[in-house]
Amino acid sequence: MQSVSWILHQTSHTGNVGSAARAIKTMGFDQLILVDPKNPEAIQTPDAIALASGADDVLAKAQVMTTLDKATKSSRLVFGLSARDREFGPPSISIKEACAIAKDQSCAFLFGTERTGLRNEDYHYCTHRVWIDANPIYSSLNLAQAVMVCAYEMRQSLQESAQLKLPQVAPRANIEAINALMEHLREGLIAIEFLDPSHPKKLMERLRSLFDRAGLYPEEVDLLRGVAKQMILKNDKGFKL
Amino acid sequence: MQSVSWILHQTSHTGNVGSAARAIKTMGFDQLILVDPKNPEAIQTPDAIALASGADDVLAKAQVMTTLDKATKSSRLVFGLSARDREFGPPSISIKEACAIAKDQSCAFLFGTERTGLRNEDYHYCTHRVWIDANPIYSSLNLAQAVMVCAYEMRQSLQESAQLKLPQVAPRANIEAINALMEHLREGLIAIEFLDPSHPKKLMERLRSLFDRAGLYPEEVDLLRGVAKQMILKNDKGFKL
Repeated sequence: MQSVSWILHQTSHTGNVGSAARAIKTMGFDQLILVDPKNPEAIQTPDAIALASGADDVLAKAQVMTTLDKATKSSRLVFGLSARDREFGPPSISIKEACAIAKDQSCAFLFGTERTGLRNEDYHYCTHRVWIDANPIYSSLNLAQAVMVCAYEMRQSLQESAQLKLPQVAPRANIEAINALMEHLREGLIAIEFLDPSHPKKLMERLRSLFDRAGLYPEEVDLLRGVAKQMILKNDKGFKL
Repeated sequence: MQSVSWILHQTSHTGNVGSAARAIKTMGFDQLILVDPKNPEAIQTPDAIALASGADDVLAKAQVMTTLDKATKSSRLVFGLSARDREFGPPSISIKEACAIAKDQSCAFLFGTERTGLRNEDYHYCTHRVWIDANPIYSSLNLAQAVMVCAYEMRQSLQESAQLKLPQVAPRANIEAINALMEHLREGLIAIEFLDPSHPKKLMERLRSLFDRAGLYPEEVDLLRGVAKQMILKNDKGFKL
C-alpha cells in the first residue's frame, strides 16, 4: 500500500491511541504518528496496549514528534478532520472525496484533541479540511471512531482502484436441470394433492420465480428432486395426472 | 428514518455499550437493543454513560431483552456481523451490499460477543451474514468500531437513496415467519420420510440457505407452508418425530 499516515495531535487519553492503532491496522495501514501527546509515554501505557489488541506492533513502532510541521511535511495531501465549517482555511471536502483524490498520492490524516478538535492554526498544515457525514443534531464522533471511519473509507477507495477480483461464484444449475426439476415437483405436488392440475393457480410459476431469484445450485436441484420423488413414492393416489 | 435496530448480544464490557450508543447516534440512529448482556445493569454503569457522551439518551432508552428471537422478530432483514466464512447458514454479503438492500426495509444489525463474535446457532436469526472489508492479516475490529463502520455505511446508503429514488421492492417475510416455515417444512419432510430426524444431513440448513438467498415474500411462505401441511396430512406414518 502507498504511504498513508495517521497523525494524532495532543491526544489526552492513551486508550484512544491504542484504539486508533487497532483501527488503522484492521484497514491495512501501519503508520501512526503522535504529535505532542499529553503523555509522552502514551504508546507504552497498559491502557493503550490493551486497546490496541493485535495491533500492538503498530503501536510499538508509532512515532512521537514534537510539531505538526515535522509530522506533515512529507505528505502531498494533509486532511484535517473537523465537523465544523470554517470561513477561512483550506477547501472543505467530504471524507469520500478526500479518499478519492488520495488514491495515488502520499497523504496524512490529521486528528485534533478529544475535547476541541483541530484549532484554526492547525489548518495551516492541512491541504484540506475533511468532514465526515453525520447526524446534524449530534455529529461528535469519538477520536478513535473518527479514525476508524477514515481508515475504512481509505481502504474502500484503495480497493476500488486496485479493481479487486470478485469472489468466484460456484456455477448454477442449467436451464435444462431447472425445467426437469419443475416437472418433477409438479408431479410430486399433484401426488400429495396440493396441486390440482385442473386448477393449477399459477403454483408452478410462483415456485419457479422463487427458484430463479435464488439461482439454484446443482446440489439444490438434486435435493429438491429428492423431495419430489419422495412425495410421489409415498402418495400414488393423488389427483389424476 | 426507517426502522434500523442495533443489537448487541451478550456484551461483556459496558464501555462498549456506551461507545456503540455514541456511534449509532452520530449516524442518526437511536434503537439500541442489548440481548442477555453480561451485566444486566449495563446501560446504567458509569463507564457506559461516560463513553456514550452526548448519546446518553440513546443509552437510557436502550432495550434489554432475554433472547435473540425476541430482538430480531420484527425485522425483515437481520444482518449478523462476522469476519469468518461459514459453509452453511445465510448468504454472505459485504456491509455495502447489506446497506444497499436495507434501504427500504426494516432491518437489524446483530453483533456477537467481544471474544467470540456470533456463534453458529445465532445465525438462525439472521437473513444474512455480513462482513466488513478488512486487512486479511488482522481483521479484528473492536465491537464498538464494527458498530461505527456499519452505522456509517448505513447512513451513507440512506443518504444516497434519499437523493435518487429507487424502484420499490415489496417487503419480504420477517425472520419469525421464516423460522416457523422451516419448522413446518421439517415436519412435512419427516412425514414423507425424506428427512430422517436421526440423520438430518443438514437438509434443513441447505433449504434455509436457498430461501435466504431468494428472500421469500409472505405469499411464498404461505405457499410453502401449504405444501408442508399437505405433506403432513397425506402422510401421518412417517419417521417418528
